[in-house]
Amino acid sequence: VSGKTPQGLQTRRAILEAAARIGSVDGLEGVTLGRLASELELSKSGLFAHFRSKEELQLATVEYARRIYAERVVIPGQSSPRGIATLYALLHHYVALMEQRIFPGGCFFASAMAEYDTRPGAVRDRVAEVQRQWLDALERSARDGIERGELREATAAAQLAFELEAAVLSANWYYHLFDDATFFARARRAVRSSLEATATGKGRRQLDAVIAACG
Amino acid sequence: VSGKTPQGLQTRRAILEAAARIGSVDGLEGVTLGRLASELELSKSGLFAHFRSKEELQLATVEYARRIYAERVVIPGQSSPRGIATLYALLHHYVALMEQRIFPGGCFFASAMAEYDTRPGAVRDRVAEVQRQWLDALERSARDGIERGELREATAAAQLAFELEAAVLSANWYYHLFDDATFFARARRAVRSSLEATATGKGRRQLDAVIAACG
Repeated sequence: VSGKTPQGLQTRRAILEAAARIGSVDGLEGVTLGRLASELELSKSGLFAHFRSKEELQLATVEYARRIYAERVVIPGQSSPRGIATLYALLHHYVALMEQRIFPGGCFFASAMAEYDTRPGAVRDRVAEVQRQWLDALERSARDGIERGELREATAAAQLAFELEAAVLSANWYYHLFDDATFFARARRAVRSSLEATATGKGRRQLDAVIAACG
Repeated sequence: VSGKTPQGLQTRRAILEAAARIGSVDGLEGVTLGRLASELELSKSGLFAHFRSKEELQLATVEYARRIYAERVVIPGQSSPRGIATLYALLHHYVALMEQRIFPGGCFFASAMAEYDTRPGAVRDRVAEVQRQWLDALERSARDGIERGELREATAAAQLAFELEAAVLSANWYYHLFDDATFFARARRAVRSSLEATATGKGRRQLDAVIAACG
């Protein structure tokens, strides 16, 4: 089956879905062509028609996961008004994605970061790039919020983005380690109280509106 | 070599030191008796005199790492006055340990948590227990701080402990992913500003004193 026919694209998608799922639980290094072939009941040569090497498969899996975050976190988050509303909505949709357990092992990029932070190569570079874009998106929203008079002028945008992201990232780890959803509530509370403490009067009104819209 | 002679204890310590080092970089599952034997130039049967199974070795490695955190983080942290000073000092010494790169792959327990959060068994249970004790120690200091009138009465101790820990835990991940020590500075700033915002007048004086003492 060539990778370009409709059936080929469907197979490719099924491979990447399985690889992302396995990757979030056992790590991307655990995603071997042999394991995928047996899980998907495909021949190894059938798999090789789609991915010629383990690294090519791993990079394609990272792109597949990145698209899920784009569709479910970044695009809906950025459809809110720029500034504090987008900042809140990005973090809200990230936590919601974790709560929905789309990736059974938790945040795909948190797992990939843990696995590749000390393992040089193309996969690590791409994971770092995606994670950097995520931190940058948060920081940019914070800057927008300052410019629009929603966050106090003295706010350090990069610092605020780091602190908010730290709360949602750690909730992902502790939720899985302790099997305790309280940590998502803690992350939401941290995000909300930190933004309330940093917001101007105008910013608080925007924040209340986006919280009501996100539900 | 028996495990009980001085030479045996020295060998055991060398094995655990290597296992903790490898574990922080490649994960505890990557610590095989074969790999240790070749790194330490020991026979496999020599290793088996100390640890009869991979799991026994992994559990002993967790205890070895726990003792390093006890000696370098918990004991010096708790030698500060109870309350806000201990809370600050625990987090300060944790960040200092990461900065010193005692574990080349970063925080041993962050790596172990990432590796075992979805892998049931004795190692996961022990890692969760140690991590729980750490969160509890932070929460207890926060409670002490409230009781002693150093933190505002309305402070939610568990929430504060979670937020502070999230900052130092995430700094560990981002420092290694981006090879950028700025993240440690961000974590320190987050801890300090969060404690300042929560402290009473008495608490601020205690905080200034412990910051001066920690350097």
